[in-house]
Formats: sequence, structure tokens, C-alpha cells
Amino acid sequence: MEKRQLIYEGRAKRLYQTERPELIVQEFSDEASFSGGKKRVMVKNKGALNNQISSYLFEYLEGYHIPTHFVQQLSDCEMLVKRLEIIPFKVTARNTAAGSLSAFYGLKDGIDLPHAILEHYLKSDHLPQPLLNEYHVLAMGLATPEELKLINRMASKVNVVLKSFFERRNLKLVDFTLEFGRQSGKVLLGDEISPDTCRLWDTKTNKKFDVERSQQDLDGVRGMYEEIRDRVLTKVA
Amino acid sequence: MEKRQLIYEGRAKRLYQTERPELIVQEFSDEASFSGGKKRVMVKNKGALNNQISSYLFEYLEGYHIPTHFVQQLSDCEMLVKRLEIIPFKVTARNTAAGSLSAFYGLKDGIDLPHAILEHYLKSDHLPQPLLNEYHVLAMGLATPEELKLINRMASKVNVVLKSFFERRNLKLVDFTLEFGRQSGKVLLGDEISPDTCRLWDTKTNKKFDVERSQQDLDGVRGMYEEIRDRVLTKVA
Repeated sequence: MEKRQLIYEGRAKRLYQTERPELIVQEFSDEASFSGGKKRVMVKNKGALNNQISSYLFEYLEGYHIPTHFVQQLSDCEMLVKRLEIIPFKVTARNTAAGSLSAFYGLKDGIDLPHAILEHYLKSDHLPQPLLNEYHVLAMGLATPEELKLINRMASKVNVVLKSFFERRNLKLVDFTLEFGRQSGKVLLGDEISPDTCRLWDTKTNKKFDVERSQQDLDGVRGMYEEIRDRVLTKVA
Repeated sequence: MEKRQLIYEGRAKRLYQTERPELIVQEFSDEASFSGGKKRVMVKNKGALNNQISSYLFEYLEGYHIPTHFVQQLSDCEMLVKRLEIIPFKVTARNTAAGSLSAFYGLKDGIDLPHAILEHYLKSDHLPQPLLNEYHVLAMGLATPEELKLINRMASKVNVVLKSFFERRNLKLVDFTLEFGRQSGKVLLGDEISPDTCRLWDTKTNKKFDVERSQQDLDGVRGMYEEIRDRVLTKVA
């Protein structure tokens, strides 16, 4: 597959056209951003690690009949994906209170929720990206009622599958964020699934694989990506 | 009905026990708060005007089979209401983009929404009161799924009834906020319905009856409450 012109450049990823209009190359960079994007640093090998982790997890989810944009890993930092018309909100699934949930909603940090919480955040170039409820999504025409229902079902299924996947690797999936898009009218899971989009805690030591908290120590940050990659690729019963 | 001990004192209202445990007196004060509660001033006669407006609107809604806590108006500033176990979120219904919807969601101020948006905000003594989605409401145990569905249905019905009520008085109901509570397992509309909880614009002149914008001119503010009261009490076809 030939990599042609750049069509999107973000902090952690670049997207390139290919000779086939429905396929693009997603290239992972080593750039990491902290403090809501205000601080930017390079973490050596992060792009390759996230590509490896994401490729593995997308294939794993496909095994559970969850349709994703993933086609194949092309190289260390490149993944071939289906080109999506992006749905302009992110979906966060939460199993345990942390981050904004404990900061703003008065839930104690670390308590397990009785049911998973899904949240939808408007994608926007301007921070902060506001929380949306289903009325916002529909009134603003961000998705149809059927798409929203399907996206929520897909996010819940991804949560069940990944929670159990990480548990078997002694990692607690506290929360994570997904992006979705359409191709030929079909809703697919897009973007990536990596330590940049998942909050993971060690189930035994409670160690927080939290890139944000470790930003002073870039070797430590790289070590976290490596450890997650190693655990993800471990074959377990 | 005898007014006994004070059981709650807020900025705009005080609640008193009566000799019957299931009934309380809701007393409206003249105190107005601006800038999210940071500025507090007295607006002469506001309590009586809001009591008059609210009493009228609660009775009107009861005529449409919407159950409320209203029993009867007792005096200028006092209303007899059913004592409710408060449901700890407010419900905002929006017909037109204004306020936070245009500030944070990129919707142009003043555009009419294709469908009404309902929003749920956690009641909290600490500002800001965060937006909740249905997953938050259920995971935090703020209401049962049946109660949430019923509350949303009641809020939508109140919106339809009041929108048409105000339209016939040349007022556009841009958005408004409701509170709900339980008595003997039944969900009732509580609190008040007044210029303090409704954003109203004149349909002809587009004049904004916006207490917040007029805070420099307290006579002007009192005039707004009086004009809304006059229009609410007007008999129209």
C-alpha cells in the first residue's frame, strides 16, 4: 500500500491517503501531550508501542465481532485503516471513579461503580470539550438515534471484553475513551486503544499506569508503555 | 395552617413546618442573586410577585394533569406545598440556544432547536453544578430508571404546556429549570416557576426579560417581574 499525501496531522498521529480512497495509513508519533495538551514532549518509541498495542487490541475486538477501522499493521509506526467519516464526539466508558468523575461529581476516587458509566464529549479544537447528553447529540445532529444506540451498545461491549482482557493481565480498566466513525453507512470503532486512551491500574499493587502523573520522568513514562505492551501481548489462559 | 419552625433557609426561599407533617409553608423572599450567587441584592416585592406567578402556573399545570407540590397560596409571600423528599438534580428544558448552550456547545445564540433539549444538573452546595447524563443519574443512585423516565416525560410535558401558554402572551420560553421530589413514592414537580427559573424573550420586540443582564438597574428588574406577572395573569383566548 503506497503512502500518499498527508490528510491530517494531530499531536500523536498523522493520517495519509493511499491509492485506494477507502483506506488510509495511520502513523503513530512519539509525541506525548500532558496537562490537557499544554505540554508536549517526545517519548522515544511511544509511537511504535501504541501501534503494537492498538493493532493487537483491534484484532482482538474483531474476534468478538466488534467492527473496527483496523485492516493491518504495516510497519513499526504505521497501521492501515479504513477511512472513516468521523462522528464528532468521543465516548468514555468508566468502571471506577477517577479523574473528572471524582473531581466534579463527588464520587470517591477509586470506588467501583455499580454499573459502567458512558459519557459523550463533543470533539472540538477549543478546550474544554463539553459533556453531551443524548438530547444534545440528537438536537445537534451529531448522530442519528439509531447510531447513538448502536455506539452505546458497541462501547458497552468493548468495555466488557477489554475489562476481562485486562483483568487476566492483572490490570484494572478504570476508564477509557473511544472514537467512532462511519464508512458506507456502517459505524466502526476508530482511532486507537492504547495507554493514551485507557486508564489502567495494577490489580495487585494498585500502581497507576498514569502517563499524566509521571510526566516529570520520561524514562518512567516509556517504561509504562513497554510494560502495558508486554502485558497486552502476554498469552494468558 | 400554622407556620412552625424553619426547616430550610435559601437565598430566595424559606421553608417552615406546619402542624401537618406532609405539608410545609414555602415563603418567597425579596432577595435576588446575580452572577451565579456571588452578588446578592433586595428587589422590593419580588417575593410576592414570584409567589403569585408560581401559584398561578402550578394551578395551570395541575389542570393539565401534571402533579405538583402546590396546595394553595396562603398570603402575599407564602405558599402551602406538599413536603417532598428532594431528588438531587435540576432539570433544564431548552427550546432556543442561549446561555451555556451557546457558550460551550457552539450553537448560535437565539437559534431555535429542532427538538427540546433536556439537561440534568447535580444539585450541590459547591459551584459549579455539573451536567449529568442518564448513566450518572443511575450509577449514582439519584433516581430509579422509572423515576428518570417519568421526570423526563413530566419535564417535556411542562415544556409543551408552558411554551404554548407563554406564546399566547407574546413571550418566548427560551429555557427553564425545574426541580422534582417524591411524596409517598409519587414524583411531584416542586420548587417554583418564575422569572428566576425561566428565560423569557418578548416574541415581538425580542426584549430579554433577563434579570442577570439588568442587575445594574434594580427598578428595571422589579419592572420585569411585574410585567411577567401581568402577562401571566392576563386572560387570553
